Amino acid sequence: VSSDRKIMRPDDANVAGNVHGGNILKMIEEAGCIVGTRHCNTQNGDHCLAALVRVEKTEFLSPVFIGEVTHVTAEITHTSKHSLEVQVKVMAENILTGAKKLANKAALWYVPCSLQNVDKIMEVPPIKYASAEQEEEGRKRYEAQKMERLETKARPEEVMPSPPNPEKHTVGFSQSTLIHLVGPSDCTLHDYVHGGVTMKLMDEVAGIVAARHCNTNIVTASVDAINFHRKIKKGCVVTVTGRLTFVSNKSMEIEVLVDVSSILEAQKGKYRAVSAFFTFISLDKDNKPLPVPALKVGIVQSSSKVCLSFKTLIHNL
Amino acid sequence: VSSDRKIMRPDDANVAGNVHGGNILKMIEEAGCIVGTRHCNTQNGDHCLAALVRVEKTEFLSPVFIGEVTHVTAEITHTSKHSLEVQVKVMAENILTGAKKLANKAALWYVPCSLQNVDKIMEVPPIKYASAEQEEEGRKRYEAQKMERLETKARPEEVMPSPPNPEKHTVGFSQSTLIHLVGPSDCTLHDYVHGGVTMKLMDEVAGIVAARHCNTNIVTASVDAINFHRKIKKGCVVTVTGRLTFVSNKSMEIEVLVDVSSILEAQKGKYRAVSAFFTFISLDKDNKPLPVPALKVGIVQSSSKVCLSFKTLIHNL
Amino acid sequence: VSSDRKIMRPDDANVAGNVHGGNILKMIEEAGCIVGTRHCNTQNGDHCLAALVRVEKTEFLSPVFIGEVTHVTAEITHTSKHSLEVQVKVMAENILTGAKKLANKAALWYVPCSLQNVDKIMEVPPIKYASAEQEEEGRKRYEAQKMERLETKARPEEVMPSPPNPEKHTVGFSQSTLIHLVGPSDCTLHDYVHGGVTMKLMDEVAGIVAARHCNTNIVTASVDAINFHRKIKKGCVVTVTGRLTFVSNKSMEIEVLVDVSSILEAQKGKYRAVSAFFTFISLDKDNKPLPVPALKVGIVQSSSKVCLSFKTLIHNL
Repeated sequence: VSSDRKIMRPDDANVAGNVHGGNILKMIEEAGCIVGTRHCNTQNGDHCLAALVRVEKTEFLSPVFIGEVTHVTAEITHTSKHSLEVQVKVMAENILTGAKKLANKAALWYVPCSLQNVDKIMEVPPIKYASAEQEEEGRKRYEAQKMERLETKARPEEVMPSPPNPEKHTVGFSQSTLIHLVGPSDCTLHDYVHGGVTMKLMDEVAGIVAARHCNTNIVTASVDAINFHRKIKKGCVVTVTGRLTFVSNKSMEIEVLVDVSSILEAQKGKYRAVSAFFTFISLDKDNKPLPVPALKVGIVQSSSKVCLSFKTLIHNL
Repeated sequence: VSSDRKIMRPDDANVAGNVHGGNILKMIEEAGCIVGTRHCNTQNGDHCLAALVRVEKTEFLSPVFIGEVTHVTAEITHTSKHSLEVQVKVMAENILTGAKKLANKAALWYVPCSLQNVDKIMEVPPIKYASAEQEEEGRKRYEAQKMERLETKARPEEVMPSPPNPEKHTVGFSQSTLIHLVGPSDCTLHDYVHGGVTMKLMDEVAGIVAARHCNTNIVTASVDAINFHRKIKKGCVVTVTGRLTFVSNKSMEIEVLVDVSSILEAQKGKYRAVSAFFTFISLDKDNKPLPVPALKVGIVQSSSKVCLSFKTLIHNL
Repeated sequence: VSSDRKIMRPDDANVAGNVHGGNILKMIEEAGCIVGTRHCNTQNGDHCLAALVRVEKTEFLSPVFIGEVTHVTAEITHTSKHSLEVQVKVMAENILTGAKKLANKAALWYVPCSLQNVDKIMEVPPIKYASAEQEEEGRKRYEAQKMERLETKARPEEVMPSPPNPEKHTVGFSQSTLIHLVGPSDCTLHDYVHGGVTMKLMDEVAGIVAARHCNTNIVTASVDAINFHRKIKKGCVVTVTGRLTFVSNKSMEIEVLVDVSSILEAQKGKYRAVSAFFTFISLDKDNKPLPVPALKVGIVQSSSKVCLSFKTLIHNL
């Protein structure tokens, strides 16, 4: 078990003082990476780093505010031959009143990559389980996520540019794109981007989409399971695009696509590294939920049409 | 005279170790803001902050590297009734060898805005000049920049999205957009964005455009005069777009447009806050200039056509 | 003499607007490292970097607020064969009123480490003294700190985990731990952590301990002499633990222990890199001192018992 404490700063939060979900995801992943890497280096052989391959669906249980202290605890809960599961809990403490609340609980899967050769997956030392039931449940979670990862390929479709003068409350109106040049602080010792850094960028774009749609204070409510299909190397340009895919009275679902291109090896072209669905809710000044404006089906772009129906399919399953 | 020293860190630089021009511009503006604000608060009346309204054309004289120490010195060189000119010099020192070089020299114009009412421009206490010639030369620089600022309105044209599958080396191929949600650390005590923060974002986008066009290590060579037409408030979303407007064998010129929208007051719409032309050069591994691929006139977008001819006009003046 | 100016931003401060003592310590150390490194590279031989080995007891003389400009000046005041003393002063200037105050004064000891071989200590070029008295006084300070450093071994005791449900106002209740993965921006050209970065983390943990104990706005009042026993390399995990060791009506004393482990070479185990005592005071809304709740001797942990008696010893000396 590893534990970490941090005071939330103004830059970690939106104008209303709510800490961005992306910052919470980044802290969760850093804790997971530390315990995973430490565990995998207890045996002989090449040194290795734990690389994030999947985050299970995560709910933000209560908002965190500037000035609160977050406690992140991480524990390895299952190991397979080549992967391990880390469960992470985030508590938020108001140090003025002493009140504590559970802000987030997440499960992450890592694989150990050799420091000598990043494409070589190392073996994971087994953990001891408290009981046979515990081991069996872990194995089921392992099989389920493995199946899902095999089924889920990176969504292949192109990102369509917004139409020139999009009507308000259409998909094109709030669609947003961010580019980021990967710097040293974004990276592990391998010179590959920390999964948490990518998730923070994704949450940032999704938040801007949500705010543009409803013009209020918005917060991350949950993130669907995320698979990390490809690694992102230092010096690459990351293009993160977000667009609304579903809107109910209470929440907005935003698909976020992460495309990567190397500026030094342009002939290699772009590739899709990650994609995920974020759910945001709209809040008033007292942090109470507000109704969300309906999504207008204006001049729909071909790709978001696919997208909408894809999600509708999932919603109907 | 104010002075400032700082060690350049990996995060301030690109993969080849060259400190980003945007970081240099940000340091320059912070130094200018300090001396300007200090000077304008030496008399009675409302307290005020120096707000950046213009940066004169700036050349990057020599590259700065990670580990070097930058020395920024700033001096007020002219005052008019409502504005002041600050000249700033950046020296880079290799503290291992003791070698020093002039990295940048810039002239910035500020106006003092009341802290009580940001739209109220205060009076600037006059400085004493060493000689009548010095005062006269300053007055000429003041008149020249005033004329130019009156003539130059914010470029009105819309930012056109890139075509879906742009051909390599066309304008659309390297066009890039970044969005940024303005946070507390980006702002002055007024809750308006520091001019230096905006310039850093602009340089970042321009650098990505340049790198996408030539796929090499690129550095900022110069920035044309920049006028800051409108202020940018905390909590706004800033959209920064860069696109090639001119390419010679030796350098790339990139126009950068900064559009601002309030996510809480969307009815107010977007406005153009700043625009500028950055010039980048391409370098090999030994920091020697490389030839730049020619700009292809493929499927040209209407706006960049306007843009190209506008610059051609300027080049012919 | 080296000088450095910086505007304090919201992220540098606590919710009440007081700049964290840890940020002041970080600026002090950066200034010391620059003048020390520059001085030691004025002669032939290997290039070297000044590595922090000790900070003398430091008092925070007046609080610094967001929007103030800090001026850090550093001067080499003594040299021995293998070490040098730098005295650093921090002035805080309100650029709106022109008011200046002395915020901090500190003395730091550095040794020059070769860039080729970090374990090789280089010779320090001698400085010229203004008078024989000045030289003699410096030699006394040098001898005193050398004695203390030789006597002070890294405190060996284990960090005890807090008991499960600690009673309020006991040591266990406010004890706090922070973990940090050392990244590139934390490091010197050697890839070792800047002493200032470590001190900032230590102040952050101590501040959380103090705030948990008294649930008010707290500020750093002073730091006991700190010896840096061991270096901390990039890629390590730093565990920083703080706990109350003494509480008077007016202030809280917090011991902070810095333990380091390599996540790649876990078999090498943890080592204690630094330890120090921080003193915090509690402030009301007008920045006036508040009384501090007494420390309850509940279920005392073995290690903090040692700790309490150790400090009591010191207090009785």
